[in-house]
Amino acid sequence: MKAEIIAVGTEILLGDIVNTNAQFLSKELASIGIGVYRQEVVGDNQARLIEAIDEALKRSDIVITTGGLGPTGDDLTKETVCKYFEMELELHKESYETLLSIFKRAGKEVTESNLKQVYFPRNAKVLANPNGTAPGAIFEKNNKIIVILPGPPKEMKPMYLNHVKKFLIPMGNGIIKSEVVRVLGLGESFAAEKLKDIIDSGVNPTVAPYAKEEDVIFRITASGKDGNEALDLIKPVKEAIKEKLGIDCYAEGENTKLEEVIGDLLINKGLTISTAESCTGGMIASRLINYPGISQAFLEGAVTYSNEAKVRTLGVSQDTLKRYGAVSEETAKEMALGLSKRTGSDISIVTTGIAGPGGGTEEKPVGLVYIGVYYKGQIRVYRQVFNGNREEVRNKATITALDKVRRTILQDNIV
Amino acid sequence: MKAEIIAVGTEILLGDIVNTNAQFLSKELASIGIGVYRQEVVGDNQARLIEAIDEALKRSDIVITTGGLGPTGDDLTKETVCKYFEMELELHKESYETLLSIFKRAGKEVTESNLKQVYFPRNAKVLANPNGTAPGAIFEKNNKIIVILPGPPKEMKPMYLNHVKKFLIPMGNGIIKSEVVRVLGLGESFAAEKLKDIIDSGVNPTVAPYAKEEDVIFRITASGKDGNEALDLIKPVKEAIKEKLGIDCYAEGENTKLEEVIGDLLINKGLTISTAESCTGGMIASRLINYPGISQAFLEGAVTYSNEAKVRTLGVSQDTLKRYGAVSEETAKEMALGLSKRTGSDISIVTTGIAGPGGGTEEKPVGLVYIGVYYKGQIRVYRQVFNGNREEVRNKATITALDKVRRTILQDNIV
Repeated sequence: MKAEIIAVGTEILLGDIVNTNAQFLSKELASIGIGVYRQEVVGDNQARLIEAIDEALKRSDIVITTGGLGPTGDDLTKETVCKYFEMELELHKESYETLLSIFKRAGKEVTESNLKQVYFPRNAKVLANPNGTAPGAIFEKNNKIIVILPGPPKEMKPMYLNHVKKFLIPMGNGIIKSEVVRVLGLGESFAAEKLKDIIDSGVNPTVAPYAKEEDVIFRITASGKDGNEALDLIKPVKEAIKEKLGIDCYAEGENTKLEEVIGDLLINKGLTISTAESCTGGMIASRLINYPGISQAFLEGAVTYSNEAKVRTLGVSQDTLKRYGAVSEETAKEMALGLSKRTGSDISIVTTGIAGPGGGTEEKPVGLVYIGVYYKGQIRVYRQVFNGNREEVRNKATITALDKVRRTILQDNIV
Repeated sequence: MKAEIIAVGTEILLGDIVNTNAQFLSKELASIGIGVYRQEVVGDNQARLIEAIDEALKRSDIVITTGGLGPTGDDLTKETVCKYFEMELELHKESYETLLSIFKRAGKEVTESNLKQVYFPRNAKVLANPNGTAPGAIFEKNNKIIVILPGPPKEMKPMYLNHVKKFLIPMGNGIIKSEVVRVLGLGESFAAEKLKDIIDSGVNPTVAPYAKEEDVIFRITASGKDGNEALDLIKPVKEAIKEKLGIDCYAEGENTKLEEVIGDLLINKGLTISTAESCTGGMIASRLINYPGISQAFLEGAVTYSNEAKVRTLGVSQDTLKRYGAVSEETAKEMALGLSKRTGSDISIVTTGIAGPGGGTEEKPVGLVYIGVYYKGQIRVYRQVFNGNREEVRNKATITALDKVRRTILQDNIV
């Protein structure tokens, strides 16, 4: 079976957005052994979309569209597919009721324009959209399949994964699986060097490193006649990689987040944590609180961006601030000490730094961040200089601080 | 003149990389008044590429390809275009000498496979590549144009900007400019409804709404014989839109962030702010601190996720917590009051809610968030229910809370 992916949206042809949906779907289709013959992007125009669908279905068996399911007049993917397949639209009761309840929950009236989103032909399979107001659908006619999905990735992806994937698997040619091992504290080239032997000798599975925004991942990919065969091939290679990486490997999994790893560690070991943030300004706390069960462990966070707050809430001395400056090892140390006294937590993590763009000097450049860790009576301050703009410096400081927490807990010691 | 962009590369069809080149070129072409009729991606396969080029040139005047100019056997874009246009390849002296010097500098011998990169037909315009070994080229025949560019963005972009753009400008239909107006507090359909007349009557400029992750934007796009003419056409429409939207329009601009708007407001009016966050757990503070000059205005943030912290740091009464619960109007009110007492700021913003996935009841569902605003002695608590997963609920609560701050300052009153 061959498939084509058609993105519908003038905003893509204008270059206003990148078509990341095509990548997601291509990868997914490859993973179930369905080859993508072509990707296309067409504007919000019925004649052009019909032309594109017609061409694609002459070459391929399956067309997946993304976009054009919204409430406005230029959203016309569904209407166009119905016209192409000569199917009549009628009110789809279940979707209508869902739409009503969404608007009711928000305390609003359903608008006229949203109503068109719940019309579908009787012989289409309607796909519920728990993340938006536009359901998707699967159409079949003359041995050809058209799947229409919404444009926003956060609506499109779960709809594909929860409904479309299992519908398409029987049409694919074997299964390709991949697993991911995640690394912190090592750059891509260092990590890859460490695993050189494994990477070079890999055929099935193959192993490839990728530098992500926050970490480095190794993707282990195998193909098998079914999912289990592929996974059995991956397993020993994954274990070998994890052993070679040691503590630098912090997690497995496509979407595992650092805060989940730390949340699990804190809860399992019965430890409590507090935060006091200057340059990261709430980002560390915010990440920890993303972990749903964190209330057991997270005692309190302070955002002490101003000197006054550092004095008032953490008891940093005016003298220290004057002599060494707010961005200094001494201030970081007093922040960590003051915070642990205030909350009594087992672990305290604090940051103070120069996120930029201004404020840097030769001695204390933009990107300089002191990260202080208090753990069971001991304190250690790490000095780091991060590259990037304000947001990047703050992000890297947040990740590094959280990773220090992880390493401290795992080794039951200030590292 | 109409153009199409064809990316050549099996790795794109496998989903291994995102086709960001198409976005860059689309935006560039739009800016010189060349409409992109379609974007396509095809694999490294001569027959399929010929098919795609042939189809595209039947619809459009210009085809720009990216990728397939490398040294390996499956790089065949140039060879395919020459076959299509029936042109003979011969050694291109200048490119050959450049190639020699690149390899000489690296202390290496030119490989056999790199040599194929410096063969071009006599009547093509060869485009030097200072960032790689693959020159690009412009082909013209029968009033049709094909431009071939390398795949890596850092080679493709300068080649387009330095050579191709000025070649294409005379073929464009004047210059197209667009501006963006940003909206908060109204969904896409409501906002579009409000501007229905302007949207429906728009020809040049056109007005189109887009739902973004955090807000809704209206893009106003006009074409003129030059940039100024286009901007002059946009201006009155933009003003009309801003007037109709009133306070719901919070900013103009492609990348303007809410925290920039609020930071400017706080600084300009000489106001100070503090935050106390339960479910948003530092996200509001973190956004505010993203504004580089915020130290003048931001007094202190508290992350009071636990009841103990709400009592200790904000002075919320145990009795209130017991009687009404941590997620209640009463608690939000006491948080706002306690915070403003503690820091003495002009504005205090607090959140307490149920971000999920657990913890919801019928009366207090997941997504329920109380947002409390203290402003110059007055307090108001807003009750909101947000859809989505934990991260989305927290994000929406953060945006909404920041928007309440914005509205409060603008109206100099609790709204």
